Amino acid sequence: MTTTALDRRLMAANIRMSRRHLGLTGTNPSVGTLVVRDDGDGPVIVGSGVTATGGRPHAEPLALAEAGDRARGATAYVTLEPCAHHGRTPPCAEALVNAGIARVVAAATDPDSRVSGRGYEMLRAAGIEVEQDVMAEEAKGVLSGYLTRSAEKRCEVTVKLAVSADGMIGRDAAGQVPITGDAARAQSHLLRAEHDAILVGIGTALADNPELTCRLPGLSARSPLRIILDRTARLPLGSRLVHSVGDAPLAIGTAHPASERAQALEGAGVRLIACEEHEGRVALPELLDDLAAQGVMRLLVEGGAKVARSFLAEGLADRIVLFESDVVVGANGIAAPFTRATIPGEYTASGEWRFGADRCHEFLRSK
Amino acid sequence: MTTTALDRRLMAANIRMSRRHLGLTGTNPSVGTLVVRDDGDGPVIVGSGVTATGGRPHAEPLALAEAGDRARGATAYVTLEPCAHHGRTPPCAEALVNAGIARVVAAATDPDSRVSGRGYEMLRAAGIEVEQDVMAEEAKGVLSGYLTRSAEKRCEVTVKLAVSADGMIGRDAAGQVPITGDAARAQSHLLRAEHDAILVGIGTALADNPELTCRLPGLSARSPLRIILDRTARLPLGSRLVHSVGDAPLAIGTAHPASERAQALEGAGVRLIACEEHEGRVALPELLDDLAAQGVMRLLVEGGAKVARSFLAEGLADRIVLFESDVVVGANGIAAPFTRATIPGEYTASGEWRFGADRCHEFLRSK
Repeated sequence: MTTTALDRRLMAANIRMSRRHLGLTGTNPSVGTLVVRDDGDGPVIVGSGVTATGGRPHAEPLALAEAGDRARGATAYVTLEPCAHHGRTPPCAEALVNAGIARVVAAATDPDSRVSGRGYEMLRAAGIEVEQDVMAEEAKGVLSGYLTRSAEKRCEVTVKLAVSADGMIGRDAAGQVPITGDAARAQSHLLRAEHDAILVGIGTALADNPELTCRLPGLSARSPLRIILDRTARLPLGSRLVHSVGDAPLAIGTAHPASERAQALEGAGVRLIACEEHEGRVALPELLDDLAAQGVMRLLVEGGAKVARSFLAEGLADRIVLFESDVVVGANGIAAPFTRATIPGEYTASGEWRFGADRCHEFLRSK
Repeated sequence: MTTTALDRRLMAANIRMSRRHLGLTGTNPSVGTLVVRDDGDGPVIVGSGVTATGGRPHAEPLALAEAGDRARGATAYVTLEPCAHHGRTPPCAEALVNAGIARVVAAATDPDSRVSGRGYEMLRAAGIEVEQDVMAEEAKGVLSGYLTRSAEKRCEVTVKLAVSADGMIGRDAAGQVPITGDAARAQSHLLRAEHDAILVGIGTALADNPELTCRLPGLSARSPLRIILDRTARLPLGSRLVHSVGDAPLAIGTAHPASERAQALEGAGVRLIACEEHEGRVALPELLDDLAAQGVMRLLVEGGAKVARSFLAEGLADRIVLFESDVVVGANGIAAPFTRATIPGEYTASGEWRFGADRCHEFLRSK
């Protein structure tokens, strides 16, 4: 047997569904599973599941529980190879076997050494027909944070920037200046919700006094960990960031975690991340390593200009999301660290959307 | 060249020193480095370092900075193979080369795939004489949490228990009953400080209303993450544990993270760890996997009886620390889940200490 156009359509739907819990699954990937059977009247989805909030249960047992007896003889579509290592609950590969699934169509292979290929082996050993690598590239788009963390032991970085028509990202000493309209702003709050952590420099934290939470109706609980690059622990105790530690976790990356200021911030509920110092700045690659070791898979960098420039210059941005608006900032504007025209050559345009008068461009770094 | 008795004496001192930051180094191991030179008048320690609080900087650059020019031609003793992967700051192997170190004596090899053997290669390629595996077993005793997490992707577990002369661990409905004396109690608080996280069941949390912080003079900031196994999120908002979230982080392992009670706890600053459920209990192996993925290397299990019994029965305890006292609990005693006589056969006695009238026995699981 090979895969059909129907397999690809169902997998595409499954991949879209699997996005649902991005940023919400702790240290586990946001995976999707569909259980589909055809009793002669065409295919029917009898069970579906996405990795639960917090990362457990996994998608497969959720979909199988919904399908119940109807899983027997059915096909399961999974965006990631089912896990193969034993705990107290059976590994997902075994759960698929026990439920009587006849065929598994899988997208990406799990690079985790406890799984890689063994999930497929377990299925085939039980007589299940397995089609792997079906729409693997598309699935990897959703799983990229998990894959980067597993394979490279660092977290995946998206740099987001909103640039005005005259190439500015804000106005000097003016706090937060709206560059994009409501629709694009909602989109960038959704971007926050889909990440495990969000990062800005202390300059932005001081100038804008932002809250950096996800303020979309119904999604406020999805505010990710907020990280401030704050080498000397200057973040004010009275800032909105510190005041909102009860709403969303807050951390500073500092080279002086034992300092009085850092200790006072810790006393106010701020987590301290000890950082290396390099030429008067926080060393970024080491920070990304440590964040990955803490379970952060997807990091969203929101500025300011210096920080965004550093991530690009050091080759640490995997993805750039660039909003362009028709707003003119004019006098005292803060120049964007890059624009569409000056994005480094190793980035390739991979998508474009319109939100009212604003445009959004996505670029991926070539491997 | 081979190693000398002096090498072993210096390495033993280095390993003892490296314990200093156990439980304080985030996701990095607590490593020790000594820089030693002999200009004809016998060996002199010219620099020493332990991985800094928070995990950065590493031990080697700290020791080299202290040694300064005197590192040239000296011998460096390291409890773990120096790291070899580049960030913004040079990897420790390169730092040793740049400082002019002539000889490196190393204990344990790093299982991290970005290092394993490559640190030694980098040193040898620069003409440095390398002696590896010197007192490796002793060093692994300090590094075991890091090694378990790197190699097996789960956290290392120590189960601690204090048993009375009549085989009890407390008295029914009597809250916390002192079993051991002050010296042993101080020792068990030090044990807390040396771990990344501490775990008890909800039964113990409800019966004892404990705080589970490290209450040794000068070490209160060393209280680890406190984790309550709380499948249905029953931990009261008014408990001492919740009241002390400002002093030390608190998490519950729950199978119902979306429940109203769990969400209320989250609102009070308690972290939620989504757990699998198995036969009406939190599934422990899955929890240990997830904790490791969050960076927890060393977990201390403090009870109660049911929880300790589960960790032993499921083969999840790497180490048992058993305090025995001459206190008699008498009527309404809660029987210990195990005593020295009933510890499973796969555990071997590895140490014994006296603290006043109390004895402490350590057992390690045979590999």
